[in-house]
Amino acid sequence: MRQFLVTGHDAPTDDSFSLDNIAGGAGRLDVLCRCVNAAFFLSHDIREEVRVHLVLSDAYTVRFEGSDLRRLNPDERSTAALIRGALEQREEAIGHQPVESSPGVSLYRMGFEATLEAAARNATVVQLHEDGAPLVDAEPPTDPLFVLSDHHDFAPAERELLADAADRRVRVGPERLHADHTITVAHNHLDTDGYTRY
Amino acid sequence: MRQFLVTGHDAPTDDSFSLDNIAGGAGRLDVLCRCVNAAFFLSHDIREEVRVHLVLSDAYTVRFEGSDLRRLNPDERSTAALIRGALEQREEAIGHQPVESSPGVSLYRMGFEATLEAAARNATVVQLHEDGAPLVDAEPPTDPLFVLSDHHDFAPAERELLADAADRRVRVGPERLHADHTITVAHNHLDTDGYTRY
Repeated sequence: MRQFLVTGHDAPTDDSFSLDNIAGGAGRLDVLCRCVNAAFFLSHDIREEVRVHLVLSDAYTVRFEGSDLRRLNPDERSTAALIRGALEQREEAIGHQPVESSPGVSLYRMGFEATLEAAARNATVVQLHEDGAPLVDAEPPTDPLFVLSDHHDFAPAERELLADAADRRVRVGPERLHADHTITVAHNHLDTDGYTRY
Repeated sequence: MRQFLVTGHDAPTDDSFSLDNIAGGAGRLDVLCRCVNAAFFLSHDIREEVRVHLVLSDAYTVRFEGSDLRRLNPDERSTAALIRGALEQREEAIGHQPVESSPGVSLYRMGFEATLEAAARNATVVQLHEDGAPLVDAEPPTDPLFVLSDHHDFAPAERELLADAADRRVRVGPERLHADHTITVAHNHLDTDGYTRY
């Protein structure tokens, strides 16, 4: 199982946003949508052994479960519609009990800390950070949970939590990449590992 | 200079499409938009030494020039708007004379063959193909031109042209990836080359 936790600092916490302006009026939801795309899509296939946690402004988390996903499409707009559909049912998410709004898409009333704690159980927590060790040098982790930030840096409180939780700190290259591109590179690294000269 | 040529087999050739449905009504223009994103964006920066050629249904080509780009944003919709803006001026593109519709964005009345021929001058043509040699084994090319197809395979005529033009055939991993993910992996490979244990 590969997990990706992406924290969206400006992401919406209700369903009042328009799908026509997700990069502007919806707190850069486009960034999170691209992360979902990068995490799940293969050419004409879906990575079933993947789970994605999108933390929305430290208030809610939308979880995508690869093995159950049925209506995920690669474009940003339709993924934003799935997130909006989850937020429409936010009153049904009580305590830590999620509500499933579409096959494989569930909303949790959990912020960064609770989501990180739950996802980290039985996982190797890998913080993706520009000061980390090069990915190519790193021993591929078992059941990795990659933790990424959106277009902003991690908030101070998130950094503290990660300093405690992270088993490793890794960077994907000499250039600083967008979160979704980082996910693509991490997948490719794990895909090719073990396939010596695949 | 890194170049990427992406051939879009169902892409629009006029500006009548809606930005609200680029994945449906506009011939999977979302695929091409994501390729532009993957080719140019770094975190809070643009790769200036990159040129992208989007071939639209073998009739037109939209060229994005990294060093001149001014209004490119990461989301699919705004990139689709740039492509639509280029197509609005299609009557101005006469012969092989392009029309620049926005800084760094130009429309050419050129299909796959003419675009490939022009882009291949002084470039190492690399066909990205599942039967190619693993990228990790390949000597990084000088001034590479990566040629990719959208969500369809290359058309027979394109395959023939590529068989003649391609200096190398490369694949990025054991999994078959979307075109935009392939671009991200190719960039990362070139970024890290030379940076032994960067």
